[in-house]
Amino acid sequence: MATTEANTEQTTGSGEPADQTAAADATTKGTEPEMRAVVLQSFGGANRVKVMKKTVPTPKDGEVLVRVKACGLNFLDLMTRQGSVDDCPRTPFILGTECSGYIEALGTGVEDLKVGDRVVAFQRSGTFAEAIAVPTKYVYEMPNKMTYEEGAALGVCYAAAYMMLYEVANLTKGKTLLVHSAGGNLGIAVSQLCKMVDEIKIFGTASTAKHQAINDKFDHLFDRTACDYVEAIKKIEPKGLDIVLDCLCGEDTNRGYDLLKPMGKYVLYGISNVVTGETRSFFSYARTWWNVDSVKPGKLWDENKSMSGFQFYHFLFNQGGEEAVTTVMNEIFKLHTVNILNPIIDSTYAFEEVGEAMLKMHDHKNVGKILIIPEQEPKPKPVTVTETAASEASSTDDVKEPDTPK
Amino acid sequence: MATTEANTEQTTGSGEPADQTAAADATTKGTEPEMRAVVLQSFGGANRVKVMKKTVPTPKDGEVLVRVKACGLNFLDLMTRQGSVDDCPRTPFILGTECSGYIEALGTGVEDLKVGDRVVAFQRSGTFAEAIAVPTKYVYEMPNKMTYEEGAALGVCYAAAYMMLYEVANLTKGKTLLVHSAGGNLGIAVSQLCKMVDEIKIFGTASTAKHQAINDKFDHLFDRTACDYVEAIKKIEPKGLDIVLDCLCGEDTNRGYDLLKPMGKYVLYGISNVVTGETRSFFSYARTWWNVDSVKPGKLWDENKSMSGFQFYHFLFNQGGEEAVTTVMNEIFKLHTVNILNPIIDSTYAFEEVGEAMLKMHDHKNVGKILIIPEQEPKPKPVTVTETAASEASSTDDVKEPDTPK
Repeated sequence: MATTEANTEQTTGSGEPADQTAAADATTKGTEPEMRAVVLQSFGGANRVKVMKKTVPTPKDGEVLVRVKACGLNFLDLMTRQGSVDDCPRTPFILGTECSGYIEALGTGVEDLKVGDRVVAFQRSGTFAEAIAVPTKYVYEMPNKMTYEEGAALGVCYAAAYMMLYEVANLTKGKTLLVHSAGGNLGIAVSQLCKMVDEIKIFGTASTAKHQAINDKFDHLFDRTACDYVEAIKKIEPKGLDIVLDCLCGEDTNRGYDLLKPMGKYVLYGISNVVTGETRSFFSYARTWWNVDSVKPGKLWDENKSMSGFQFYHFLFNQGGEEAVTTVMNEIFKLHTVNILNPIIDSTYAFEEVGEAMLKMHDHKNVGKILIIPEQEPKPKPVTVTETAASEASSTDDVKEPDTPK
Repeated sequence: MATTEANTEQTTGSGEPADQTAAADATTKGTEPEMRAVVLQSFGGANRVKVMKKTVPTPKDGEVLVRVKACGLNFLDLMTRQGSVDDCPRTPFILGTECSGYIEALGTGVEDLKVGDRVVAFQRSGTFAEAIAVPTKYVYEMPNKMTYEEGAALGVCYAAAYMMLYEVANLTKGKTLLVHSAGGNLGIAVSQLCKMVDEIKIFGTASTAKHQAINDKFDHLFDRTACDYVEAIKKIEPKGLDIVLDCLCGEDTNRGYDLLKPMGKYVLYGISNVVTGETRSFFSYARTWWNVDSVKPGKLWDENKSMSGFQFYHFLFNQGGEEAVTTVMNEIFKLHTVNILNPIIDSTYAFEEVGEAMLKMHDHKNVGKILIIPEQEPKPKPVTVTETAASEASSTDDVKEPDTPK
């Protein structure tokens, strides 16, 4: 664990860290249990991410301590690292927004969960750690037969996809739908969740290299870098689509809206066009939003269309969405039990390899979920390191070629 | 029938009348059957509406001839009369967009309907006549026990309300909802359709005079002219509402959007704020739209909200919505059969009283549906005519006090 550092002054006295960080930042005493965690030291590139030792937090009133077995990596983690997210804590803080594990201790006032329960947990930040204290309102009990890896993969992406399809866009029989990043975990979640309704036709965009791996899940796949996806879709569906789920934003917002047929629904749920490189770019951020046309309600009225925005984390953590998300997570777990939802794990990484995992996600090389596993040993460093991997993931000592999907 | 006029040069050689009008405009020959119809002679006030004799149209390929028994009056008829609708035919043409009746003759190629079938029919214009030729794709067979009056009242408003609630806004258990003009036929349709889902809380706006009549259908009613409905609703639901159905537009669009809680949906389905008097006003039209804020997709994303536009007629007649509407109409008829939907008939008027009926709708004096009945005799003119009624409805010879609801 060459990059694991002790919990030093680096992470204390830094202003107003999040609760989770505050707990972890307590001076390590000899008798207090320690844990390893992935800490963002300042906003920027992958070299700002360090594995450090922290004190295991103590669960407060209404919280449980979860021993983390698997963490989900999300695009939000990349945006957070770059400082492109409005409401994240001040650095340094522990990265990560979702995990699975088992309950190791209960705070006061916890009655509906017990030590030993296997759970999925969401948190504003802090899940990339060996343990996390988290309010029970963000904790979801896993079914018996679900593995920790499945649990971590069935979290945020499946919940967000479910809510977009069945609450925001109201997917019903016979609808046509487009989702970008079709090979990502959310794209695959969408493709599986669409099976709950008859006669859905799904269009996806993904790089050509992924098409073979996900061909059976989509009716039509297009590579955005190789063709004009709007033209290609209009050749197949001249009247347009019923639903467009857009994680790109920018010019793709306008194009997605124009792709709708009457009664169609456009849903903006991400702004990945903002992230155009390893570090934050004001210009990519500004350009993305500048390119988005404002919508006049009269235009929606004239065209019989809907435009929606959906930010899962914002809904859950800032807008009181915990009850709605709990309902959705229970539904997702049920659908996994009856074999409708089966997450695909692209690859697993050790804490020391988070930078590498982020690079893989940034480059859209994954098919399915990328997981971070606290107990996993870093893979041996290969003799030959590609130039890109070396420069992009220079902060981690144990860089290797990306895994093939399991 | 003092205002019934012969079909003279007034209505011929007027450019490019709609098909329906063209058929009706054919020179009346002695042997050709005649009918009475409500003709808009030019855009403007109620005095532009005349009852005239026309030739009974001959159904073309794919059309049926419907002997009209009851017509629904809609706010769109007022806007059409004023010339505030983009795609209506050139004057003169027969007014009216929905009716019920029975099939009297079939055009060629009609196989799914037969003479004698009792039906509801929608048409871009032309239903305020004793007979109408209409394509079968806009014709819906009525259940046996439904009266013609019920059929005419269960048409456009119920179909539009159903589509807004269950396709656009996705009404589900426990939602809160606001509808304006709660005492109108669409407002009542919304209140009845909400009963299909558990634990819905409905807020409505309506003039105080109507509150007693509809109190049992809404959880909370407010008079927009007597209080700030947004403030009043926020006192009861501080987090806001899940769904706002807005037929007003203008400043109420912004207010309706602001009333939404996270994951809330605003639906613009009408622009009645445009209609501020007996004749068309460019200024009310312009002001209504000027007051509407454009929506940035980023704002929707930040706030987890949806904004939709819904124009039932545009969808049905211009955007190929006939199949979807047929499905909805069949569902509505089923719901009537099982007693979930029971339209309220506010009042019925003779052809000669259409101006008076329109005035009642303009002044929002109706509770439920206003029907125009071809066979109905005009009510005797009262001895005392109020000043308002005399000036507003001066074009009709048989003006009387508005009926009480039946």
